[in-house]
Amino acid sequence: MSNAPVVGIIMGSQSDWPTMKLAADVLDDLGVPYEAKIVSAHRTPDRLYDYATSAKERGLNVIIAGAGGAAHLPGMAAAMTPLPVFGVPIKSRALSGKDSLLSIVQMPGGIPVGTLAIGDAGAKNAGILAASVIALHDNLVADKLDHFRAAQTASIAEDPVD
Amino acid sequence: MSNAPVVGIIMGSQSDWPTMKLAADVLDDLGVPYEAKIVSAHRTPDRLYDYATSAKERGLNVIIAGAGGAAHLPGMAAAMTPLPVFGVPIKSRALSGKDSLLSIVQMPGGIPVGTLAIGDAGAKNAGILAASVIALHDNLVADKLDHFRAAQTASIAEDPVD
Amino acid sequence: MSNAPVVGIIMGSQSDWPTMKLAADVLDDLGVPYEAKIVSAHRTPDRLYDYATSAKERGLNVIIAGAGGAAHLPGMAAAMTPLPVFGVPIKSRALSGKDSLLSIVQMPGGIPVGTLAIGDAGAKNAGILAASVIALHDNLVADKLDHFRAAQTASIAEDPVD
Amino acid sequence: MSNAPVVGIIMGSQSDWPTMKLAADVLDDLGVPYEAKIVSAHRTPDRLYDYATSAKERGLNVIIAGAGGAAHLPGMAAAMTPLPVFGVPIKSRALSGKDSLLSIVQMPGGIPVGTLAIGDAGAKNAGILAASVIALHDNLVADKLDHFRAAQTASIAEDPVD
Amino acid sequence: MSNAPVVGIIMGSQSDWPTMKLAADVLDDLGVPYEAKIVSAHRTPDRLYDYATSAKERGLNVIIAGAGGAAHLPGMAAAMTPLPVFGVPIKSRALSGKDSLLSIVQMPGGIPVGTLAIGDAGAKNAGILAASVIALHDNLVADKLDHFRAAQTASIAEDPVD
Amino acid sequence: MSNAPVVGIIMGSQSDWPTMKLAADVLDDLGVPYEAKIVSAHRTPDRLYDYATSAKERGLNVIIAGAGGAAHLPGMAAAMTPLPVFGVPIKSRALSGKDSLLSIVQMPGGIPVGTLAIGDAGAKNAGILAASVIALHDNLVADKLDHFRAAQTASIAEDPVD
Amino acid sequence: MSNAPVVGIIMGSQSDWPTMKLAADVLDDLGVPYEAKIVSAHRTPDRLYDYATSAKERGLNVIIAGAGGAAHLPGMAAAMTPLPVFGVPIKSRALSGKDSLLSIVQMPGGIPVGTLAIGDAGAKNAGILAASVIALHDNLVADKLDHFRAAQTASIAEDPVD
Amino acid sequence: MSNAPVVGIIMGSQSDWPTMKLAADVLDDLGVPYEAKIVSAHRTPDRLYDYATSAKERGLNVIIAGAGGAAHLPGMAAAMTPLPVFGVPIKSRALSGKDSLLSIVQMPGGIPVGTLAIGDAGAKNAGILAASVIALHDNLVADKLDHFRAAQTASIAEDPVD
Repeated sequence: MSNAPVVGIIMGSQSDWPTMKLAADVLDDLGVPYEAKIVSAHRTPDRLYDYATSAKERGLNVIIAGAGGAAHLPGMAAAMTPLPVFGVPIKSRALSGKDSLLSIVQMPGGIPVGTLAIGDAGAKNAGILAASVIALHDNLVADKLDHFRAAQTASIAEDPVD
Repeated sequence: MSNAPVVGIIMGSQSDWPTMKLAADVLDDLGVPYEAKIVSAHRTPDRLYDYATSAKERGLNVIIAGAGGAAHLPGMAAAMTPLPVFGVPIKSRALSGKDSLLSIVQMPGGIPVGTLAIGDAGAKNAGILAASVIALHDNLVADKLDHFRAAQTASIAEDPVD
Repeated sequence: MSNAPVVGIIMGSQSDWPTMKLAADVLDDLGVPYEAKIVSAHRTPDRLYDYATSAKERGLNVIIAGAGGAAHLPGMAAAMTPLPVFGVPIKSRALSGKDSLLSIVQMPGGIPVGTLAIGDAGAKNAGILAASVIALHDNLVADKLDHFRAAQTASIAEDPVD
Repeated sequence: MSNAPVVGIIMGSQSDWPTMKLAADVLDDLGVPYEAKIVSAHRTPDRLYDYATSAKERGLNVIIAGAGGAAHLPGMAAAMTPLPVFGVPIKSRALSGKDSLLSIVQMPGGIPVGTLAIGDAGAKNAGILAASVIALHDNLVADKLDHFRAAQTASIAEDPVD
Repeated sequence: MSNAPVVGIIMGSQSDWPTMKLAADVLDDLGVPYEAKIVSAHRTPDRLYDYATSAKERGLNVIIAGAGGAAHLPGMAAAMTPLPVFGVPIKSRALSGKDSLLSIVQMPGGIPVGTLAIGDAGAKNAGILAASVIALHDNLVADKLDHFRAAQTASIAEDPVD
Repeated sequence: MSNAPVVGIIMGSQSDWPTMKLAADVLDDLGVPYEAKIVSAHRTPDRLYDYATSAKERGLNVIIAGAGGAAHLPGMAAAMTPLPVFGVPIKSRALSGKDSLLSIVQMPGGIPVGTLAIGDAGAKNAGILAASVIALHDNLVADKLDHFRAAQTASIAEDPVD
Repeated sequence: MSNAPVVGIIMGSQSDWPTMKLAADVLDDLGVPYEAKIVSAHRTPDRLYDYATSAKERGLNVIIAGAGGAAHLPGMAAAMTPLPVFGVPIKSRALSGKDSLLSIVQMPGGIPVGTLAIGDAGAKNAGILAASVIALHDNLVADKLDHFRAAQTASIAEDPVD
Repeated sequence: MSNAPVVGIIMGSQSDWPTMKLAADVLDDLGVPYEAKIVSAHRTPDRLYDYATSAKERGLNVIIAGAGGAAHLPGMAAAMTPLPVFGVPIKSRALSGKDSLLSIVQMPGGIPVGTLAIGDAGAKNAGILAASVIALHDNLVADKLDHFRAAQTASIAEDPVD
């Protein structure tokens, strides 16, 4: 497998990176090449247009988009690419990400965004979900995903410790 | 005053028109020329791009945008025009417009959308607010707005009737 | 392409079918073979166990799971298969699907569910999202998806009608 | 009475233990033998299956299950045992346990989970509620419960102190 | 087994009976003798006091309490009896039972109420949960409960029908 | 005017006192004699019964009741006295007092509780509201209330300072 | 007692009258003279100013104010009179009165509004609460209130009927 | 252009200034003369009356009003001036500004308030939105706004940094 990215991670702002990095980390672990870019739907709409409309021809298979508040990035990316788009609601200051969640998940019929949990768990899970898509046709990733899941199960001790 | 539209009313779907028509009606009453178009952020992103980026040069002063659910139209229009944008959260099926409201109002610093109430009252008020902007430099509209407000006050009876 | 199902649509109850059928309909339109089954996490946990653990070896690529209220079906399916799972929150009686949404989307790190909107739009979009995954390695589906999206864009009239 | 556990305390993660320990503490105080285990519905579904299906025959009378976010543990345990199951919504990071609460309490007709308050108070109360069930046929526990309640009443001073 | 009631169903108002009757129905099915009374925490506080303080000595094992809005009945009953109390949030007019749910479930540490889902499902489940407590020491009820659960599982068809 | 208390401040727990003291402070300022007691609806139901049923004959005119979570104290006091009862929702740990607010304000028709804001502002305002009731027939309190309000108005500077 | 009104019922709109009439009805029953007026904070601010600032000198003892949505009437009345003000949140179209409730109850420290439940129950209770204030110095009203409460208690049948 | 203020920034309390100063800062940047005043709807209703009714004749074009909790300032200002009013919901202590948001945005038909996001982002955006209104007839401001927006776009790096 070449190293050309098959997953694109985009986020609305530098401040989303500490969360979205968890998606990158899990893709690293699972051997999925990716790229990570800041693309603000509101402040760089042209960049978003270029990114989304060229994503498929540039070889991406999946887009992961994280944004907070009135989070339009995942939905607008999904409007401009036929690729599967997974959205991560970033925890927002006043409403703790409830606004981010509703802004991402409540898409109208016709343009889907597969939405993950608010915050860190969601970012990590977006990486795993993207890998599970890649794994459908990449045995190396499929194996790594199986090992990841098995190790995760094995890591849960039976007895709680004080 | 010419009849060239100075307010652009856009909405995400034909189904939003019964609500958004109340904005048009009040602009009619207040003598403000407008146009009304369906522009779906998700299903017609190119149309949105063209509409928003050309709005100012085409002579519009204000954009009123109504949308429901993950309502990205007002915010994306605001991202692509320096004109004031007013957003109307359309009442949604499952969440009664609470998703629409948060998706419109919780814009990040830098790109404002002046958001009105959910549903009919919000659409009517978007029209009045747009007219109040036009009225700043149009005495005819200012007069009509004053009369509208005075008539509204006069219409409130003092005694409730069974 | 054979007719063996590559997408499994499961739902917690017969009463979810009018919603989930919209996922099936769109998969029909896009030429994606699927199966549809009632699998209640709470009332048929053994059936869920069998369904999820055998899904991959039976040739499924994607699972779409719809459930309402304390909606555990999507998350429990995701716990028992490495396949991508997409969840549809069914509109519930008292809380309009807000409980369904949170029960599906707020998965812990490690086990993702890509969650769609509450109700009909979400079910339709789960079908499209599943098709977008299949389309990554199926040109026929990719073409149909492109046509579907183009037709959708073309269907949006510019002028609202009373 | 032997020391074989009659109450099983399970929780989705080690991080739930500081909360769930309050259930254990109160069972200690009330003389009810219990066991405490980590059983993750999502990461150890087989362990959950084994735990829940064997609980009754192993002599348990009540299961207390604590989980956060998309909290599926209590409901899935209830799906696989006829024993009474009491659920404790763990306070979650983004939504403060509102997601945990709805995921646990909004069970469909047929599979009940008796749900307690979010967080520490809920865990403590799950222990008391379990003891009140045991007390129906165990006079020693009944006496201890009566004393516990009387002491609790007596501990409430009449005058607030600065 | 005698026919003396072992479960007391109480509700805040006659208007709660159509919901609470589902608890009674399931207790009928499971062979658990019960009584049903209207006891308003707010309008008949003395009746509540008498009911709760005498419940144990009158032979009740479990109290099921349904109430809506600022639903104080379950919690106040729990304050005055050591018996297990299960609460059913009745769907309220303005807030659809969200107020009822929070008023019942968010009890302070020391006085538990095992809370079920809002509305009909919750009432039915309160009956099942009460029966599961009775079944711990009543083989007849235990058998009926096992059959009830098995029949419920068997009743779920695999294939959805249009 | 004698010093016999005319306002009774009750609260569910010692931990509510830092909030409820603000009601006491404002009654001190306005010259209204009061008493302050801990009365837990759930842990000391007999004390509540005695307090509320004797309140009027003991000379109280108004009861202020503060409680958090499933806050039953104000409503249960109102159930057992014809005096006006004002409720203060204490900020709760998980839900920030939203549960307290709904548990207090959503009383059924027939038994009113006049509810104030969540937390400190609500406690202070309960004191002012109680004083405004006393002021109707006590000129000294009326004068003090007028001065309090005038001073409050005068204290608001016109220009914000950095 | 003369027939001069001692309670003023005001509401933001004619459409609030079917709800607010329940306050009037209960005042009729309890022998408390009142007046009812439409006073819109937003559409007739001068009328509100005149009403509130003259209320005390005109002989009113209590103001009951009902409003919906961004419900400013109760709080603005309270800002301009030292009389006790009780607020009734009218059920609103999109948000079912949750907006009305928060707009009324969350007053800042210094200006209290005693808030009742959303809708009909709240309006009825505002009337009872106002009467309980009047009853403090009017034995006739006090007697009627006692009878009203006793009759209410007596009206609650013990046995639910199908 | 003279230095006479064309935008009036008002806020309910000194404690709102750290937030509202962000509106002032952006107006400074964009060359829009403004004034900033504390005007409490509840504690200084006369000041509000004077401010709002004289705003237009004093030369203001836009009013920006920030308030928290039961936030009545923006709506009451809008009730007394035909000028466009933009509202900023201040983050509140218990409910994080959700109460402020609903109190400001849910205005009835007839009196609009263009509402911005909760807190800092909303205050900054109120300044930008006001400037966009001024820019319609002030080329200097229009140029500065264009530069502000271009600089904002240019400031978004493409690559996230750890």
